[in-house]
Amino acid sequence: MNEVVKQLMAHRSIRAFEAKQLDDQTIRVLVEAAQQASTSSFVQAYSIIGVTDPEIKKALRDISTQHYVEHNGHLFVFVADYKRHQLLAERAGQSVADYIGETENFIVGTVDASLAAQNMAVAAESMGLGICYIGSLRNDMARVIELLGLPDYTYPLFGLVVGYPSEEGSNKERLPFEHVYHENRYSTDDYLSQIDHYDARIADYYRERTNGRRSDKWSSQMMAKFSHTIREDVDAVVKQQGFLKQ
Amino acid sequence: MNEVVKQLMAHRSIRAFEAKQLDDQTIRVLVEAAQQASTSSFVQAYSIIGVTDPEIKKALRDISTQHYVEHNGHLFVFVADYKRHQLLAERAGQSVADYIGETENFIVGTVDASLAAQNMAVAAESMGLGICYIGSLRNDMARVIELLGLPDYTYPLFGLVVGYPSEEGSNKERLPFEHVYHENRYSTDDYLSQIDHYDARIADYYRERTNGRRSDKWSSQMMAKFSHTIREDVDAVVKQQGFLKQ
Repeated sequence: MNEVVKQLMAHRSIRAFEAKQLDDQTIRVLVEAAQQASTSSFVQAYSIIGVTDPEIKKALRDISTQHYVEHNGHLFVFVADYKRHQLLAERAGQSVADYIGETENFIVGTVDASLAAQNMAVAAESMGLGICYIGSLRNDMARVIELLGLPDYTYPLFGLVVGYPSEEGSNKERLPFEHVYHENRYSTDDYLSQIDHYDARIADYYRERTNGRRSDKWSSQMMAKFSHTIREDVDAVVKQQGFLKQ
Repeated sequence: MNEVVKQLMAHRSIRAFEAKQLDDQTIRVLVEAAQQASTSSFVQAYSIIGVTDPEIKKALRDISTQHYVEHNGHLFVFVADYKRHQLLAERAGQSVADYIGETENFIVGTVDASLAAQNMAVAAESMGLGICYIGSLRNDMARVIELLGLPDYTYPLFGLVVGYPSEEGSNKERLPFEHVYHENRYSTDDYLSQIDHYDARIADYYRERTNGRRSDKWSSQMMAKFSHTIREDVDAVVKQQGFLKQ
């Protein structure tokens, strides 16, 4: 296993950071590394907002409810973004609303932003920095749009906090290889027994970490998560922004 | 710039591979590196199909129209996947259709699969392998679903071909840092002039690479792309699979 693979295998999310801020050169390297990720048909359908204004950070923390959205080395917000394409079209007297409204192009923007973000995460960890994705910015997507001044044909996908770790984090075991990887045809044959086995391992993980106080199973966490709809407003907001018009 | 960042900055898509196939151990390391990427609330909402059957590869090549979908070291297909969650729920007498149908959860599955794929891409390149994403599998998503036996509550997002490169590839300059990165608030103030400048650089890139035969601008490529809808059926197929029901 080479050093890069070792680094990827050792990934853990970090949720507590020193007060030290990233310098401009580090921010630039992280963004440029993000930009080198693959992009569908060279479309580069995303932007990245770096949030340094303490009031905006505080407001985003309130949306997320996570303290580390405010306290970190730097907060990036990844935005799926066709605004530049729409402005180009407008200059040429062309309309692109129908194309951006396609589900296909919603997928492309979401994927482009995600690939870029994961490159940034890998780059950050290679520098000894810690990261955590902030999906909880979608708790109030309309407010994030307002706070960051995001125009139509964009939507805020998630945040990524980066910084100097002040905790170690811990690496949670993933679903077994055989469960996630299928050859040639998808099969659910062993799904439930594989999950039962995995549940036991995850319960052990929590027991060890909490001196026996907690012993959740993965399946119980998932059933709790899927027992109620969340972020019902996301659909209306992305449509308002010009997406999913089919 | 450390070695990992150097590797990320040197990324180029590879579209021609030696006939040599990846061995099982390499496939396993690539999948496990993918699995270590961050996942929203630990949901792990994706699966990966490795395609080795020559007939299926041929059929996927026909969908994609790209020869390297057939000829590579290994073909992975990334699938946004809530099937395991639905089976767990079914066993517990619970229904999760409403939750999976939310736009929020469509985003989560798409992001989870993308982060995993980008980890795999980085891992592969660290081993001296080349990669190329295959978004063109979405040219006929229904047929991909049929070929790979994908059940409801899943959808095929893209392929990723990996292999021993038989070409060098080339690194295309991205949009300028200032264009993609905004501080605190989104601004389009310099967008069109930045793109004009970038257009000139991209035209130079093509001219140099083709001895002057080609000199596309980025903006012309984008306007050509956005002059017609594509993959109009993606919307109906993902809905058929149980997504985007809001």
